[in-house]
Amino acid sequence: MEPDAMESKTGDDGPDPGAATAPRRGRFRRGRPAPAAPAYVTRRIPTYDLLDEESLVRVEDAAETILQEVGIEIRGDDEALGLFRGAGADVDGHRMRLPRGLARSLCATAPRRFTQHARNPARTVDMGGDAVVFVPAYGSPFVHDLAGGRRYGTLADFENLVRLIYMIPTLHHSGGTVCEPVDIPVNKRHLDMVYAHLRHSDKALLGSVTTASRAADSIAMCRLVFGDERMERDCVIMGNVNANSPLVWDGEVSRVIRTYAAANQGVVVAPFILGGAMGPATTPGAVALSHAEAMVGVALTQLQRPGAPAVYGNFLSSTALRSGAPTFGTPEPALGSLVVGQLARRLGVPLRCSGAFTSSKLPDGQAMQESALSLMAAILCGGNFLFHAAGWLEGALTMGYEKLVMDADMLGAMATYLGGLTIDDDQLALDAIREVGPGGHFLGTGHTLAHCGTAFWETGLADVASFEQWQDGGGKDHARRAHERWQAMLAEYQAPAMDPAVDEALRDFMDRRKAALPDAWH
Amino acid sequence: MEPDAMESKTGDDGPDPGAATAPRRGRFRRGRPAPAAPAYVTRRIPTYDLLDEESLVRVEDAAETILQEVGIEIRGDDEALGLFRGAGADVDGHRMRLPRGLARSLCATAPRRFTQHARNPARTVDMGGDAVVFVPAYGSPFVHDLAGGRRYGTLADFENLVRLIYMIPTLHHSGGTVCEPVDIPVNKRHLDMVYAHLRHSDKALLGSVTTASRAADSIAMCRLVFGDERMERDCVIMGNVNANSPLVWDGEVSRVIRTYAAANQGVVVAPFILGGAMGPATTPGAVALSHAEAMVGVALTQLQRPGAPAVYGNFLSSTALRSGAPTFGTPEPALGSLVVGQLARRLGVPLRCSGAFTSSKLPDGQAMQESALSLMAAILCGGNFLFHAAGWLEGALTMGYEKLVMDADMLGAMATYLGGLTIDDDQLALDAIREVGPGGHFLGTGHTLAHCGTAFWETGLADVASFEQWQDGGGKDHARRAHERWQAMLAEYQAPAMDPAVDEALRDFMDRRKAALPDAWH
Repeated sequence: MEPDAMESKTGDDGPDPGAATAPRRGRFRRGRPAPAAPAYVTRRIPTYDLLDEESLVRVEDAAETILQEVGIEIRGDDEALGLFRGAGADVDGHRMRLPRGLARSLCATAPRRFTQHARNPARTVDMGGDAVVFVPAYGSPFVHDLAGGRRYGTLADFENLVRLIYMIPTLHHSGGTVCEPVDIPVNKRHLDMVYAHLRHSDKALLGSVTTASRAADSIAMCRLVFGDERMERDCVIMGNVNANSPLVWDGEVSRVIRTYAAANQGVVVAPFILGGAMGPATTPGAVALSHAEAMVGVALTQLQRPGAPAVYGNFLSSTALRSGAPTFGTPEPALGSLVVGQLARRLGVPLRCSGAFTSSKLPDGQAMQESALSLMAAILCGGNFLFHAAGWLEGALTMGYEKLVMDADMLGAMATYLGGLTIDDDQLALDAIREVGPGGHFLGTGHTLAHCGTAFWETGLADVASFEQWQDGGGKDHARRAHERWQAMLAEYQAPAMDPAVDEALRDFMDRRKAALPDAWH
Repeated sequence: MEPDAMESKTGDDGPDPGAATAPRRGRFRRGRPAPAAPAYVTRRIPTYDLLDEESLVRVEDAAETILQEVGIEIRGDDEALGLFRGAGADVDGHRMRLPRGLARSLCATAPRRFTQHARNPARTVDMGGDAVVFVPAYGSPFVHDLAGGRRYGTLADFENLVRLIYMIPTLHHSGGTVCEPVDIPVNKRHLDMVYAHLRHSDKALLGSVTTASRAADSIAMCRLVFGDERMERDCVIMGNVNANSPLVWDGEVSRVIRTYAAANQGVVVAPFILGGAMGPATTPGAVALSHAEAMVGVALTQLQRPGAPAVYGNFLSSTALRSGAPTFGTPEPALGSLVVGQLARRLGVPLRCSGAFTSSKLPDGQAMQESALSLMAAILCGGNFLFHAAGWLEGALTMGYEKLVMDADMLGAMATYLGGLTIDDDQLALDAIREVGPGGHFLGTGHTLAHCGTAFWETGLADVASFEQWQDGGGKDHARRAHERWQAMLAEYQAPAMDPAVDEALRDFMDRRKAALPDAWH
């Protein structure tokens, strides 16, 4: 592991070679993105810290009590249990109870900040510190667009979504299961998905996590692109795994964690808690539970390979307690996220937060209201890896084509927000105010002209024209404009270059793996 | 002025008799709101402070430099200029230049917190401190609903909007010009508007600010309801005025300010700055300019009557510099609001922030995205009087019926967010976590049942059902549900009681004033 790739807990953050200022433009670029586009956003605003020190210590203490008294289970992975036993856990069957502070101390070797390398070096992203990476939504069986309605996702959808994500500058990462390609057998689709990310995009990607062997296949495909030596040194792929909350890590999941960590690749460990169902109905309890589970997940990566890159994740939402329905974009998980951010910084591990959540079935006002509130929580809490930041509909059941570009436009606003304000003479503009004087107008001043290109974030999708101009343009609503946008983008898509020999090797690998596996549909 | 109504700058905030916890329910109540409903929200979360002390001092210093070097004009109100001259300003024609610190020191007598009494005492609201009051949108010539489209507002619209606002528990204030009733002559419509607020609602209201005589009429009508003695003691009506930014207070506006202040009634003074037009294109400069203008507005209230209730306002937005079009719900004004909040607290005057801004012509995704980002800035910055918090469309040109109830639902989420988290044993739920254990479910536990009624904010408008349930219910989008909602609410509206003698007196006053004025349509 090289110091430039992974930063130790004790190291100084120092200058940030990959730092990029927040992009001021939200416009979607046509065709290949300009090489100067920043690979991620650098946070220049403070985090919004909800709890005081005493309250944070109480939450951390509750998490330690949970691990000490209740314990946590790893069901069906004796090797993982053995690693924890060796570190001092009291293991009884699947259940292990951890002495206070053990999980926390095991997390100490995880890098505070690390780099995930993309196939295109200009797309390489950092995790942790002041780096903020916007990542598309993940895992939906359905897709939706205004013309086709809601339907099961296919590989064609998957590929189109990867192409769009590649073209959207405010998405810094290609993501993983941008939809489930249900037309491909369950045990083979990971090959098509990883191939699609590698071939149709050049951004960093997530690999399969459904079984350890599929995780291994994902890593193996990256070896064909990056080479063995490079992968021993650099993180080029990550897996995003969920706990079976409350307090269970499934053995298949723990093996997936260990597979990525053993290969020095990244793991995002995320508890999955709908308050009142997999966790308490009270947000502080849900956060304490989540913290316990996430620490154990990060600890496992470090037990497998100290120093392996890991991301501390969370997935908190609320429940409509009368119906049991999960709810998203609501205020309690937003408050919970603020606490999770504080806990992650105190632990010193990069933070995954979830982004544009909604329960809505359509790319409508509800969808954007809920997504904005949820995304803002992730921004304020100091999230580094903003998962599900674009495309989410219907509680992750659906990836929306329009929603993807609508959220991506909102992410442009968020990137500018993350850039904060600079207080200096030029920004304070006293000379311009002197020049204009009472009752004057700033539009034609030299100061305004000098800032014309960068003064304000410009949406690529929101309508800011007059009513008459808008009406003359067809009087289209937000979703309709988004529909036209993604269709135009796909029509202009150009695949990033790939060495034909690498492409051949990837296809050959897929063919061989597919031939070796009988089709499985469940 | 009584200590319970107005709190001096030097006073201890002490216990808050009007404090109400954040309401947990966002459902719209049918018919008359329950008397136990809180009259406003009490903030229990920290403010989000963007700038450090050094940067804040630089912004404040820039504002002082503006007032000292450039000065500010009051055009056509020699009495106001005389008040400032008497306090030490250097007056030359309309222009006055203020010694550094003068405006700030004049603001010192403004109450840090005060009460605006409503006709129904249960609806009385506080301004300042940890009180947060959600106020509907103001000033649009047009109204919009899904059935009728966009059209000029009428008195019938005005009355219907007042009725809806009365029925919506997340709106704590009746507002003022909820739309322009353009079917009534310009010089008479203030009478109908004030009457509609007083008769069809019992929440606190804003009076006319278009001329000093209309402001006086507004105050006179309140005297018929509250009595002279009461009004000498209590604030029962406020006027919301805008500066003619940059650096001009119109004489008619300054007379309106003085009319309200002289009657011991509240004034909300708000600069109106679209960056790049009425202010610099750089946000720190726009904020410094706004601060200078707002301090002078507050200072005028105190010169007219020391101790008069005043609210420090702001209206910041950005401009699409290529077209000159104003833009709303964008990131730069959100950042600017955070600074404005810090400045207002340092000045010690209650803060008006603007809420649910959008450029959208429709109650669509753009509208709710922009409104959520804008409203969240007002929440985070510590706003007390959240103006324009519901109904805004098209840069304030249009009041939307659907938008009103969509925003009102979002305000329920914001109220819960403002309630924050409590870290105690019950909320940390360790006993429930012990009881459920690994792999269990929390839905049936005693802890969950005990929190069932209060655990999570419940939307009254967002759809959280399954896709199939939603489809069976007609597959309606957010705006369509909002359309049905406001129609159902109007059908169930019941007017609050009013003493017939008071009603008679109000009508008589209106008739006499209207008879004395020739119709004016401009």
